[in-house]
Amino acid sequence: MDAISVIRTKRDRGELSDEQIDWVIDAYTRGEVADEQMSALAMAILLNGMNRGEIARWTAAMIASGERMDFSSLSRPTADKHSTGGVGDKITLPLAPLVAACGAAVPQLSGRGLGHTGGTLDKLESIPGWRALLSNEEMLSVLDGTGAVICAAGDGLAPADKKLYALRDVTGTVEAIPLIASSIMSKKIAEGTGSLVLDVKVGTGAFMKTIDDARELARTMVGLGTDSGVRTVALLTDMSTPLGLTAGNALEVRESVEVLAGGGPADVVELTLALAREMLDAAGLRDADPAKALADGSAMDVWRRMIAAQGGDPDAELPVAREQHVVKAPSSGVLTRLDAYDIGVAAWRLGAGRARKEDPVQAGAGVELHARPGDRITEGQPLLTLHTDTPDRFDYALQAVEGSYDIAASSTDFEATPVVLERIA
Amino acid sequence: MDAISVIRTKRDRGELSDEQIDWVIDAYTRGEVADEQMSALAMAILLNGMNRGEIARWTAAMIASGERMDFSSLSRPTADKHSTGGVGDKITLPLAPLVAACGAAVPQLSGRGLGHTGGTLDKLESIPGWRALLSNEEMLSVLDGTGAVICAAGDGLAPADKKLYALRDVTGTVEAIPLIASSIMSKKIAEGTGSLVLDVKVGTGAFMKTIDDARELARTMVGLGTDSGVRTVALLTDMSTPLGLTAGNALEVRESVEVLAGGGPADVVELTLALAREMLDAAGLRDADPAKALADGSAMDVWRRMIAAQGGDPDAELPVAREQHVVKAPSSGVLTRLDAYDIGVAAWRLGAGRARKEDPVQAGAGVELHARPGDRITEGQPLLTLHTDTPDRFDYALQAVEGSYDIAASSTDFEATPVVLERIA
Repeated sequence: MDAISVIRTKRDRGELSDEQIDWVIDAYTRGEVADEQMSALAMAILLNGMNRGEIARWTAAMIASGERMDFSSLSRPTADKHSTGGVGDKITLPLAPLVAACGAAVPQLSGRGLGHTGGTLDKLESIPGWRALLSNEEMLSVLDGTGAVICAAGDGLAPADKKLYALRDVTGTVEAIPLIASSIMSKKIAEGTGSLVLDVKVGTGAFMKTIDDARELARTMVGLGTDSGVRTVALLTDMSTPLGLTAGNALEVRESVEVLAGGGPADVVELTLALAREMLDAAGLRDADPAKALADGSAMDVWRRMIAAQGGDPDAELPVAREQHVVKAPSSGVLTRLDAYDIGVAAWRLGAGRARKEDPVQAGAGVELHARPGDRITEGQPLLTLHTDTPDRFDYALQAVEGSYDIAASSTDFEATPVVLERIA
Repeated sequence: MDAISVIRTKRDRGELSDEQIDWVIDAYTRGEVADEQMSALAMAILLNGMNRGEIARWTAAMIASGERMDFSSLSRPTADKHSTGGVGDKITLPLAPLVAACGAAVPQLSGRGLGHTGGTLDKLESIPGWRALLSNEEMLSVLDGTGAVICAAGDGLAPADKKLYALRDVTGTVEAIPLIASSIMSKKIAEGTGSLVLDVKVGTGAFMKTIDDARELARTMVGLGTDSGVRTVALLTDMSTPLGLTAGNALEVRESVEVLAGGGPADVVELTLALAREMLDAAGLRDADPAKALADGSAMDVWRRMIAAQGGDPDAELPVAREQHVVKAPSSGVLTRLDAYDIGVAAWRLGAGRARKEDPVQAGAGVELHARPGDRITEGQPLLTLHTDTPDRFDYALQAVEGSYDIAASSTDFEATPVVLERIA
């Protein structure tokens, strides 16, 4: 077996054999297959595709490159969620404690932001004292004690994926559905959850710009999960507009706490409840009532215990950015569009995101929205507030914001997009 | 400008701009673009192609990565030949002195063998004392003094190509016509020849297995040469059968000397004369008579002076392999097929070629043919003789030879293939 023959098979539109896939993933993890060989293979996969059997084997080989976790000692059924990433997507924060409050165990291995999409761990780290890095034992202990845990994936989980993901990021090979699907699912299956709900984002602020691509990705992942014995469901959800009224780290934590307190923006509440119902259903807890758990404070109780168990102070004041800049509405009318990608880029430029993996993020930076598509607005009213510790970035962020919204004279020009577009099981 | 955006352009079937091409070649040569990024780009080029404008700019950028040579001080017109590589392809050895004997200056920058195809420099190094590595001044001096020089290309010529070629070799991206064409032509144009004849091989023993691919490659290269002011012609020639009766280093030198002495196998003589006529024509020497120069010994005279000028002894005995193994004809009839690729692999395994660039080759190793397709043979007569210094390799070489030939009862089953298949100008 050698790398060139594997590359040639896929280059010439052939089907990779199980032996080729097992060998290339293992040899790449060990450093025997070089980065320049794997990137050529990744480009061939991006352009020539993989069939369902190849994707399943590729995923299995990535799982086999590392350890598997085991939650069978827990008394509750496990339920996990994964979002493909968006702007203002703070849903994991209220969702994990909410589903735990309804009786499931929620092990939420999360990531950091890269590019214009935020990362759950970056958001939670704006809470003074909170720690993302837990040992497997600590993770299990928080999960057992509070019902939910949100933490970084350990190095032992699918190391092949970790290496391949970093490579794809610098070689223009991120946007391959087989590689995206196997990357997500290898970690979720290795993590050992019993059920999984996928939030596949569609729109300008998402990886998948079209419903067709999102559907293909969702179907691929649902197939992979189901074939591995994980009850898997996907919701395709809108990401043409940011979720809620905030994009940033501390800003989104504040909004999530509002949702847990029974308030918060309608779209965030709607999506949180929709995903909670799917997770509870997949975990076999069909009688649970997540709306009640939000209203009666039981979800908030889990949140406070979960944050505290990871060293965070749920009562601490959240960081606020040193400087603010308000963008005012240039005319009166109805806001018909507010672009998720542009707002994500603005938040990123203000310091909420990072350009390279090793960069720090600003806890207080981001964008606050004062109106959402469909809202009637008056000339001169605040439309957006930009937050940053480094005001020299305002100009650069304002460039991203320019052209990010449309204001129409009449509300007949506005067509509302549903939060949940489609369900795939 | 950044590598990912260049990769994405080609990945998404776009046309690379002049600025993108100039930047990526220069940045790769300087090490700013990483190997894993260039290999992803090479795979995207292999699968999505480049148009004529892109290939021309890519070639120009590779030329610009290094120095250009200048033969304008010579009194004779320059003529160069390039073969895409085959089995038993020793043509450069008799051809260069022959064309020089007819009045042209022949600067022949040659390569070493890799894989199943032999290398001109490896062949000449079997002559005791002969040196492949010359400084630019030495090269010009041999060329000026004898009319011909065959030597290694200096490090200064198209260094981007040198680096990219080595990368393509290990990443399954060799077989891209735009990259093959620009690799060959960047070196030939940088070398500064006035005219160029391309010998594009077609068949099992060649890079290009089909006449369509060979034609596309030939047209691309002729276009690149012509656009750069080099009079360029291509012959498509057969490589389904080895050229002549030998494949190996010293074995092929011996056969070349036979041709220079007025003898040698008919196909070698025919191809040598056909290429000589094209080179002389392209160099403006239309009255020269290469058949006469072979017959009257003037080509041999140039050969002897050229070898001596590079430290070789033209009268020295050539190395002979320590062990021989004869393969006998299993039946009587007509030899209808003798596969170039299989014979090339056998010669390679016997020690005539190398598995890695840094390996040494055996001067005496190779395969001697005792019959060619179309010849009538008798059961038990010698068909092939395998030569090696390391007889433990006989078995491995015999595996390659097995199935390499067909013997038919009647000559009606044999259809002769012409040596020159097509001419493209």
